Order: sequence, then structure tokens, then C-alpha cells
Amino acid sequence: MYIIKIGGNVLDKPERLQRFLIDFAQLSGLKLLVHGGGKIASTIGLRLGIAPAYVEGRRLTDAETLQVVTMVYGGLINKNVVAQLQALGCNAIGMTGADANAIPATKRPVKTVDYGYAGDIAGPETINATAIRALLSAGLTPVFAPLTHDGHGNMLNTNADTIASVLATALAPHYNVQLVYCFEKKGVLADASDDNSVISHIDENRYKELKEKGIVTDGMIPKLDNAFAALRQGVKAVLIGEAEGLASLAGSGTFSGTSITLSHA
Amino acid sequence: MYIIKIGGNVLDKPERLQRFLIDFAQLSGLKLLVHGGGKIASTIGLRLGIAPAYVEGRRLTDAETLQVVTMVYGGLINKNVVAQLQALGCNAIGMTGADANAIPATKRPVKTVDYGYAGDIAGPETINATAIRALLSAGLTPVFAPLTHDGHGNMLNTNADTIASVLATALAPHYNVQLVYCFEKKGVLADASDDNSVISHIDENRYKELKEKGIVTDGMIPKLDNAFAALRQGVKAVLIGEAEGLASLAGSGTFSGTSITLSHA
Repeated sequence: MYIIKIGGNVLDKPERLQRFLIDFAQLSGLKLLVHGGGKIASTIGLRLGIAPAYVEGRRLTDAETLQVVTMVYGGLINKNVVAQLQALGCNAIGMTGADANAIPATKRPVKTVDYGYAGDIAGPETINATAIRALLSAGLTPVFAPLTHDGHGNMLNTNADTIASVLATALAPHYNVQLVYCFEKKGVLADASDDNSVISHIDENRYKELKEKGIVTDGMIPKLDNAFAALRQGVKAVLIGEAEGLASLAGSGTFSGTSITLSHA
Repeated sequence: MYIIKIGGNVLDKPERLQRFLIDFAQLSGLKLLVHGGGKIASTIGLRLGIAPAYVEGRRLTDAETLQVVTMVYGGLINKNVVAQLQALGCNAIGMTGADANAIPATKRPVKTVDYGYAGDIAGPETINATAIRALLSAGLTPVFAPLTHDGHGNMLNTNADTIASVLATALAPHYNVQLVYCFEKKGVLADASDDNSVISHIDENRYKELKEKGIVTDGMIPKLDNAFAALRQGVKAVLIGEAEGLASLAGSGTFSGTSITLSHA
């Protein structure tokens, strides 16, 4: 089973998204898509007079922003992706964590920063794997927006990478799960300025080394931390690369990006 | 099985919606909810600088309006209803006609008026009843937004009354379907100025008479036409009344509004 996460960089470009969805539709076997947000939410928020607020690079979700992301992630992006997949013969069903109670979460507690309606997932054991398996068994391909709910009637904004990782872990006891993160680079790069310096494999020792040398920094660290957490909990493989890499995965079964494993393959 | 349609008049008022959802959650047996749009789409459209356009009281769905209704109906309204039902212990799953290819439709052909991205449903035989039955069998309660898709990647705007009626007809061979339209009045009224003049039963002969006398007019005609069409195709009963009538249906199984049957009961 493939669990694929696609980021805003692809969602924001209709031609790239269309190309990606063609490849995704051609992947054989069970599959599940998690999409991020992209710039559309900020654009629409601004047009509605709601300025995005950030603390240390992380978006704050106040009540009005929650409405915007619920509309844009759960409605505009999710339904357009589903409609496009249907046109490609992939029987997609759009989901948020509220639907079928798939992903219960809790509003992030206020410590030094109040992130507002940001949802934290306790762990893979809280996922409603039974409902997701019922959808897969019915021949459906779940497409998740980066939204969860608190069980008290409120939607919550949750990071798409985290959702992909937690879903992969929750489904790992039932399927051979390969978790694929599609992002803006061809993979994890040895030299940030050289887009072709893809590191093909990273295991835990190599990861420690890459962090110490400052080669892996910033946004890549939570991504890799999530990857190793998923692997330690039974996910078979984690792949990181650009969306275009999915074509070869759908074709020959190989992936051009970085493959993450616990011990070096 | 109950198929309940709830209109914008309830969706626009948080307290009424909450009250309705409590009653809906308490209905025993299989159930399915179809919600309309409400004023929120127009309000948000206006804030985005998109003025609603109408011809003969019917809303035109241009490309920008389609984006607004996809966001608002499929995202904002649908997900908030689902999250609230989850809080009430009802395992809801939000749907549009694109999800699970539940309701394929075609863009309304341009004759004298171009309605834009308005979706017409060919008939109950085009509904993906298998997928909806799989969701019901998994213990899920589908909650439909008034949106369909054209099978070519486009979402379409479709009347919620029509969706409720077509779903009821498509599911009638499999379940004893009762179709309930919740709207702003207590039922079909004998005297439009007297809210307590509810006509408790209407059969086909009475309907003809009520139309001839001008008692049933305007917006009520397509509603009743839909009701009789559904009954002729196997739906067991059609009930029309205010949202508050659902409490007695959930409690004693009686409904205070108008009951529509083919021949007078």
C-alpha cells in the first residue's frame, strides 16, 4: 500500500498537479493521498481581509483562519483533487480527520505560544483504522485534507506531513505500507545548491551524521524525524522526492528520490 | 432508512442547526443527511468580490461562483456539520457527488439561459448506490453537500432537494426509505398567512386540486413534484415540515408536518 503526501508547491500549479494525479491514478494496489495546503488559503484569506499570522514560521490558526482552511483545504482543494482523480478512473473519496472520525486530535495546549485551532494527534492508536480499511475494502482511495477534529464539534488544522506519517503507522499492522513524501526537491540533498546531489539512502546513523555536519537542517528535520518514527513503528519504507518521481514508481516501481530505512539497505 | 434534507434557513442559525443535529443524531436506524447552501456562500462570495447572479430566481454558477460553493458547501458547511455530528456520537462522513463517484452529473446544456456549472443528474440509475451502501454497512452516516461532478474533473452545483430525492430513489430498492424535507414552514400550508394551517396528508388528487386552487405555488411545486417522482419510484414516504419536527420523529416516530403519499392513507 502507498501513502503519498503531496505539498503546496504542486497544488499551486494546475499543470504539475494534473501530471502528479495522472501518475498517482496509475499506481497499482491500495493507495491513499494526503494533500497539504498551499498558497491558496493565504490568497483567499487575504481577499477576505484575514491576514495570515505566524510565530517562528508556524502559522497561527485563529477562529477566522480555521474557517478559511476548512473551506480551502476541505472544500476547494480536496474536492477538486477528488473530481480530477475521478476523471482519471481513480475512485477517490475526500476526507478530513472529522469524516468517519478518522483522525481525532486535541487543540494544542497554550504554553508560550497560542497556536489557536491547531490539532495535535496523540498517536497512531487513536486513528480509526477500521473505517479507513472499510473504505479501502470498498475499492475507494481516501484523499485526506490536512484537517482533524477535537471530538467536541470543532475542526482543527493539522500538518499534512504528520497526518501522512500517523496514517502510515496506524495502517502498518494491516498492510505493507510505503510512505512517500513528495516535495519541492528531488530528494534530500548533500549540497543544497546542487539539485542533483540527491542522497539515495539515509539510515539512522547517516541521519545523525548529516545533522551534525549541518547538511540536514530546518524543515527537513521534522520530515526525517517523522520518517524514522514511522519506520520504527512498522512502516516498510519512507521515500522522499519530487512529485515527478512518482511516474517511475507507478511504472517500474523504482523511485528517484531519497529512501529512508532504519538500517542501511 | 431516513434521508433528511436540511435547508439554508437552519444552516444559517447556529442554535437551530445544533438543535437539529441533536435530533438527527438520535434518529435510530440507517440515515443520510443532505444539506443545502444557505446565505453563507453569498456572504463569502461578496467578501471575495463575487456578486451572486440570478436569472428568474435561479442562481447562476460561473467559474468563480463554483469555487465559492465548492469551498463553502463542500468545506465550511459540510465539515462543520460532520464535526458537530461526531461530537454527538454520530459517525458522519462528509460527501459530495464526486466522492466515491456517488452522484455523477452533467453540466446543464445552454438553451435560453447559461446556468454555468449547474449539474443535472440523469436519474437514480446513475447513482453509485454500491458505494453508499458500503458506507452505511460500515456504520457511517453520509452527509451530502449539494455538489456533484461531471466525470471530467469539474465539480458542479446541484440543488439539494434534487439530490435528496434522487438518492432516496436510488436506495429505495435496498431499504425502506423515508424522505424528509426540513424547510422553513411547519408543513404545506392551506393558508400561507397561517403557520398552523398544515395540511397533514397530500396524495396525487389532492395535489392537483391544491395547484388548481393556487394554494400550492412557486417553490413548493418542484418540491412536491420531486416528492411524487420519488414515491412513484419506490420511496416509502415523503415528509415535509420544519426542522423542529424531527424531534418527534426521533422520539415517537411521528412527524408533525405534511406527509405525502401516492394514494390517500
